Amino acid sequence: MAEPSFQSLPGFRDFIPRECAVRNYLFETWRAVARRCGYAEYETPILEDTALYLKKSGGELSAQLFRFEDQGGRDVTLRPEVTASLARLAAQHQRDFPKPLKWFEIGQCFRYEKPQKGRGREFHQFNVDILGEAGPAADAELIALAIETMLAFGFVAGDFVIRVSDRKAWMDFASRHGLAEDAIPEFLNIIDKLEREKPELLKSKLAGFGLTPELVRDFIAHPDHASAAYQAILADLTARGFAAFVELDLSIVRGLAYYTGVVFEVFDATKSMRAVAGGGRYDTLVATISGGATDLPATGFAMGDYVIRNLIEETTHAAMQMEVWLQRNAAACDVFVVVADESMRPAALRLVTDLRRAGVAADLPLAPAKVPKQFQSAERSRARFALIVGAEYPALKLKILASRAEEAGHASTAVAWIAGRLQQPDGPLIA
Amino acid sequence: MAEPSFQSLPGFRDFIPRECAVRNYLFETWRAVARRCGYAEYETPILEDTALYLKKSGGELSAQLFRFEDQGGRDVTLRPEVTASLARLAAQHQRDFPKPLKWFEIGQCFRYEKPQKGRGREFHQFNVDILGEAGPAADAELIALAIETMLAFGFVAGDFVIRVSDRKAWMDFASRHGLAEDAIPEFLNIIDKLEREKPELLKSKLAGFGLTPELVRDFIAHPDHASAAYQAILADLTARGFAAFVELDLSIVRGLAYYTGVVFEVFDATKSMRAVAGGGRYDTLVATISGGATDLPATGFAMGDYVIRNLIEETTHAAMQMEVWLQRNAAACDVFVVVADESMRPAALRLVTDLRRAGVAADLPLAPAKVPKQFQSAERSRARFALIVGAEYPALKLKILASRAEEAGHASTAVAWIAGRLQQPDGPLIA
Repeated sequence: MAEPSFQSLPGFRDFIPRECAVRNYLFETWRAVARRCGYAEYETPILEDTALYLKKSGGELSAQLFRFEDQGGRDVTLRPEVTASLARLAAQHQRDFPKPLKWFEIGQCFRYEKPQKGRGREFHQFNVDILGEAGPAADAELIALAIETMLAFGFVAGDFVIRVSDRKAWMDFASRHGLAEDAIPEFLNIIDKLEREKPELLKSKLAGFGLTPELVRDFIAHPDHASAAYQAILADLTARGFAAFVELDLSIVRGLAYYTGVVFEVFDATKSMRAVAGGGRYDTLVATISGGATDLPATGFAMGDYVIRNLIEETTHAAMQMEVWLQRNAAACDVFVVVADESMRPAALRLVTDLRRAGVAADLPLAPAKVPKQFQSAERSRARFALIVGAEYPALKLKILASRAEEAGHASTAVAWIAGRLQQPDGPLIA
Repeated sequence: MAEPSFQSLPGFRDFIPRECAVRNYLFETWRAVARRCGYAEYETPILEDTALYLKKSGGELSAQLFRFEDQGGRDVTLRPEVTASLARLAAQHQRDFPKPLKWFEIGQCFRYEKPQKGRGREFHQFNVDILGEAGPAADAELIALAIETMLAFGFVAGDFVIRVSDRKAWMDFASRHGLAEDAIPEFLNIIDKLEREKPELLKSKLAGFGLTPELVRDFIAHPDHASAAYQAILADLTARGFAAFVELDLSIVRGLAYYTGVVFEVFDATKSMRAVAGGGRYDTLVATISGGATDLPATGFAMGDYVIRNLIEETTHAAMQMEVWLQRNAAACDVFVVVADESMRPAALRLVTDLRRAGVAADLPLAPAKVPKQFQSAERSRARFALIVGAEYPALKLKILASRAEEAGHASTAVAWIAGRLQQPDGPLIA
C-alpha cells in the first residue's frame, strides 16, 4: 500500500529542533519578562464551549472558528483567543486572590484563515492582563510590560513605538456632536477603517452622523487633552523613562467590540508599520461572561509569535541576540564520550551516567564505530568537549573540539574535572 | 441576560497559577533531563489528518477521538498521541539529521474518555524517542532516560521499577508451539489481558491455540534467556549502575499493535503498581506512515502528567522536592516597592523599572494605599524585600519581610545594593 506520506494540515507548523528552539526563545523571553514584572502564569483549555466565544465577541470571530460537535453532543471550539477563558477563570477564582490580578499565559490559538506569510491557522500568543484595577496606572503598567518585552528581544528606541488611543475620547467626541449612544459602535467601526475606506463612501457614512472626514481627521491631528487617561499614562511612563516609546494616536480604535477605554498597539516603526501586539481595557467583559455575577475592570494585551519572529529576523541587533541564544541553547551536548576501545563501553556508559547526574549534558555513540567517525558525531552534536575512553582507561583524554587541544585526566575524578572545565571559557586547555 | 457562568468542558483543566506552577515543574524537569541526556526538542501540530491515526493504530484509538470536519471539508483529529506525527516528521526530515535521532517533545493530547481521578480528556505527555538505531543499546539508552527522569523527580530505589519485556520472546514461544504468524496479534492480545480475563474464558481462548494457562504462566515465571535483547539491555544498564531498577517481566506486552520488540513500563513499586510511563520498539511504523518511502527503526516512550503528579504527591521525598521548587519559583516578586509618600510615586516607578531591567522581579501597588495595606500586599506577593520610598527619598529603606530587619540605602546605588542583597541568604540584614 504505497500511499503518499502524510503532510501536516495547511497552516499548521511542524517544529523541527531548530524551529522549536526559536519557539522556546520567544516563550522563555516572554516568561522571563512577565515574571520580573510581577505577573503569575496561568493556562486555560485549548477546547472550550463555543458559546463562550459567541457571547464575548458578538460573533466577530465566528467565521474563523474550528468548531465542532464532540462525542457528547457539545458545541465546542478550538480557542481563537484566550481572553474569554481568562474572564471565566477570573470570575470563578477572583475571591481566592488579592487584587489586582496580574496574570500571563503563553499558549496556542486557532483560526481558520487563509494561510499566508506571517499568518497560519495556529499561532502562539503571549497574553498579559491586569484585572481588578480600573485606574490608568494599570494601563501604564501593562504598556510598560509591552515595552519591556520589546527591549528584552533586543529592540531599541526607533525600532518600535506604542500608539495609545482611548475609546472614551471618541465617545466624548460623538456625544459633543450629538450622536446617540447606540450609534457609537457603528461610528467606531467607521473610525477603525478610516484610512482603508473609499473616500466617497467614508464621506457618505460620516454624513449619516452629521460629520465630515475633515472634522474627524482634525480631531485625530489635534487631540489636545482629549484623553485624561492618556495624560496620566504618559506621566507614569515618563517617570519610568519610557516617554520616547509612546504617542497618542486616536486613529487606533481596534476592531473588537468589547474594548471600553484605553487601547494600544505596538508598531514596527522601521518598515511596514505592522502591529506587533495590541490590547486595551475591557471593563465589562468579566461581568458579561459571568452573567453579571462578577464585575471586574480589566486591561490586557496579546502578542503573537509570527509577527514578532519576523520582526526579530529583519532587525539585525535583535536577530543577533536570538542567534546567540540559539547557539548557547541548541547545543544538546556538553561532552561527547568517544569509545575508542569497544571493550571499554561499560566504563563509558558509567561516565556518561555520572556526568548526566552532575547536570552535565553528555552523550555517546549507541553503536560501535571507528574513532574518526565518532569524532564526526561529536562535532555534529556541537559538544564542546570529547572525552576519550580507550584501552588506557582509567586514564582519560579530554579534547576541546574547537581548538583540538588535549588534556589528560583520570576516571576517578572525571566528573569534577569536566564540570570544572565546562565553567571555564573555551580557551585552549593546558596540554 | 443572567445566564449561569461558563464552566470548562468536562475533563479539561483550568490551570490557575499554583496548578500552572506544578505543570511547569513537570515540564522543566522533563526538559532538563532530556537535554542532559542528549535529546533535542521538537513539536508537532495538535490537529492532524485523521487518517494518520487510523493508519497507525489500526483503529484502536478511534472510539476516543476528538474528530471532526474542518471548514475546508478535511477529516481532522485532535491528536490522541504524538508518535504518529513524529513518524511523519522523521520520515520527511531524516536526511537532514545525523542518525540516530534522539528527540523529545512535551505537549498536550486529547482522548474522549470518561473523566475520573487520574484521567481527563486532555493530558500533557513527555515523549522521548530514538530513531535510526536498531540495536538494544538504543533501548537501554531510552530506559536509562526513563530512570533518570524518575530520579530527577526525587524518586529513589524502591519507589519504582522498570519492567522490561520483549514481544520477540513471545513470537519465538508462539513459533515453538506451532502458532501461525498471522495468529500472533490475537495471541499477544490474550497475553495482554492474562490476569484480567475470566479463568474459564482464558482457558478456552488459549486452547484454541493448543496452549494452556499453565504453559503460558510457566514461561512468564521462567523466562531464562528468552530475550537476547533483554540480556544486552541488562548488561548495559548494569554498567550504568542501574541494574536495581530493571527486571524482565514477560507479562508486559502493551496494547498497541505497532510494537515490534522490546517493550517496557515504569511501575510505581510502592502501592498500586500503577504504570507511570511506558513504551517500546516500533521498527515498522515510520515505513507504514511514509508509505514505504522511509524505513527507520525506532524506540520510544511516553509519560503522562496525571499519574506522575499523583505519584509525586503521594511520595513524601518527591513531594517535598516539588514543594521546594514551587516555593522558589512561585514567588512572582523579589522586591515589593512600598510608596510611603504618594508624591514619590514617579521615583518609585523609576526604581521598579531599573530593578526589572537588572533582572530583579519587582512590583508596586497600582493604586494609592496606606502603608500597612501596602505591606500586606508585599507579604501576599511573597516578596523577600520591601523597598520603602517615602518623603526622605532619595534615602531609601529595605526591609526583609521574613525577619522585619531593616537597612538604609540610597536611590543612586539602589539597583546594585538590592541585587547584591538578593544573592545573599535570607539572614537578618545588618541594621
